[in-house]
Amino acid sequence: MPLRDYPNIILGHGGGGKLSAELVEHLFLPAFANEPLAGLGDSAVFAVDRTRLAVSTDSFVVRPLFFPGGNIGELAVNGTVNDISMSGAKPLYLTAGLIIEEGLPMAVLGQVVESMAAAARKAGVTIIAGDTKVVDKGHGDGLFINTSGLGLIPDGVEIGPNRARPGDVVILSGTIGDHGMAVMSVRQGLQFETAIVSDTAALNSLIGRILAVTSDVHVLRDPTRGGVASSLNEIAQASQVGILIEEGLLPVKAAVRSACELLGMDPLFVANEGKVLVIVPPEQGERVLGVMRQHPLGQEAAVIGQVTAEHPGLLVVQTGLGGKRVAAMQIGEQLPRIC
Amino acid sequence: MPLRDYPNIILGHGGGGKLSAELVEHLFLPAFANEPLAGLGDSAVFAVDRTRLAVSTDSFVVRPLFFPGGNIGELAVNGTVNDISMSGAKPLYLTAGLIIEEGLPMAVLGQVVESMAAAARKAGVTIIAGDTKVVDKGHGDGLFINTSGLGLIPDGVEIGPNRARPGDVVILSGTIGDHGMAVMSVRQGLQFETAIVSDTAALNSLIGRILAVTSDVHVLRDPTRGGVASSLNEIAQASQVGILIEEGLLPVKAAVRSACELLGMDPLFVANEGKVLVIVPPEQGERVLGVMRQHPLGQEAAVIGQVTAEHPGLLVVQTGLGGKRVAAMQIGEQLPRIC
Repeated sequence: MPLRDYPNIILGHGGGGKLSAELVEHLFLPAFANEPLAGLGDSAVFAVDRTRLAVSTDSFVVRPLFFPGGNIGELAVNGTVNDISMSGAKPLYLTAGLIIEEGLPMAVLGQVVESMAAAARKAGVTIIAGDTKVVDKGHGDGLFINTSGLGLIPDGVEIGPNRARPGDVVILSGTIGDHGMAVMSVRQGLQFETAIVSDTAALNSLIGRILAVTSDVHVLRDPTRGGVASSLNEIAQASQVGILIEEGLLPVKAAVRSACELLGMDPLFVANEGKVLVIVPPEQGERVLGVMRQHPLGQEAAVIGQVTAEHPGLLVVQTGLGGKRVAAMQIGEQLPRIC
Repeated sequence: MPLRDYPNIILGHGGGGKLSAELVEHLFLPAFANEPLAGLGDSAVFAVDRTRLAVSTDSFVVRPLFFPGGNIGELAVNGTVNDISMSGAKPLYLTAGLIIEEGLPMAVLGQVVESMAAAARKAGVTIIAGDTKVVDKGHGDGLFINTSGLGLIPDGVEIGPNRARPGDVVILSGTIGDHGMAVMSVRQGLQFETAIVSDTAALNSLIGRILAVTSDVHVLRDPTRGGVASSLNEIAQASQVGILIEEGLLPVKAAVRSACELLGMDPLFVANEGKVLVIVPPEQGERVLGVMRQHPLGQEAAVIGQVTAEHPGLLVVQTGLGGKRVAAMQIGEQLPRIC
């Protein structure tokens, strides 16, 4: 039990890396033991009366509450819309659970709630249930938001992290690291020539376009905490395949690259909040890439690599100089409280 | 906008009284504007592919994490199972979102998670999705848990807080104030001859028994934050009816009554976590009371009053001496962080 090495919870247990994975594997999965949970998708899939549904839950503890390009409210709505979309489901309904620290200005709460409502309208989902708790000053941090959601999976769609197959192509919808570096640069007080803004966005409309041209999609994943590298590692493990990506094909904005260099971070591991990894059979690659590029959220979509039979369970990155390195899951937390 | 009187959030905004109601009425309802939310039930009701579903969300911030009769884990599972049951739905699936403060002992987390799993098994629900966030020390309070859930509403069942009708009888499933006073007495270090323990329990099996003998149930409500009085006030307002209850008919344990007197609290306003208010047409009263009393969670069930055409929107309490008083919604928070 690797958990025994940690008598107390540390920040890394919430980082989306190895420590998070160990909590899931050694604590939550054995305790709650059930098939939809064991699927380890961004959303859990089940059927009620033969209707296939997807549900997801996500708590947001981002600090600061407002950051370049967004705030915790729209992040919470978009994040759960995206998790539901990753099973190919059409997101329909969200719930919102707020934990507010005593003393939060009412005007701040109002602004966050308005952002949630606007994000929900934009994504075409309805927030149908809510709950508010208030904790005494010093026992919270302004505002935490949980959003849970429900979506409807169209007939014929079978998407999951365990469905990648050797030969599949790996497509990424756009630039990486924007959200993580937007939050970090404001936290660190960094200034760049070009402002870095979060990419927070609801991906359901982009996913809808893809599924309109083919239901033959194997995996969808939004690379949030832990970035593209952690998501691809999870897929490689769940599907027991290798994944090979080419570093030079990864779109990274110049300002994000500079910020990462300054802070000693690898953009491959930095959180995104409006990007999606799409893994499809090779014969669907061109078609899917085509519709993605026609969508505002997929204009910079690119094939970044492929699924291989070699090195199952591992993500391998081909560097500019022709070398190769294994990009293993990080232990803990590169960027605490990024979402 | 009464909210303007409060430039900052205070504890009472999470208390389930008037301040909570104002947040809902003036902030959440206008921002999120939709019918299931406006229903203001313990769960929101909607249909997907003609299947009627209920969803609910609830965050738990109870302090301390362990209290006589339970802990935050089983409370979180039972609370959401109950909210879903209050629309007459059969609860099926839950999600769990954990916000952990850095430094929480792993053993404590393990115990809470085991309690959640045990409570879920007992209630016959499955925890199919989860999320874990960790916040830095001093920015949380050990552990907060959000549970959201989904249930299936049987055909022919139409239950909601707006369905009480003059003449209906009001049945309560058992003693009041146990949960609130169990938490308060341990927080205050009080000792009584008989220990006060929380009544935390999943009510879905009791509700199932009631609906097996009649689908003609008007309102179900579990009187948590704000107690029986707040729940009946909400029903009186939603249904635009009066509610008259007789104080002498309310079952209260002797130790709970003593603790309330000592702390200057009215058990009518103290939280319960395993009780239900059942409002049915008079002709169903005997039958429903009968099946409730046969169930372990309803052995002390009693008719405590009736719905009236007089004094719409108000809860009136008939006292032992024959007098009557209006038991209005309290402004804020009698017992902060009780759930």
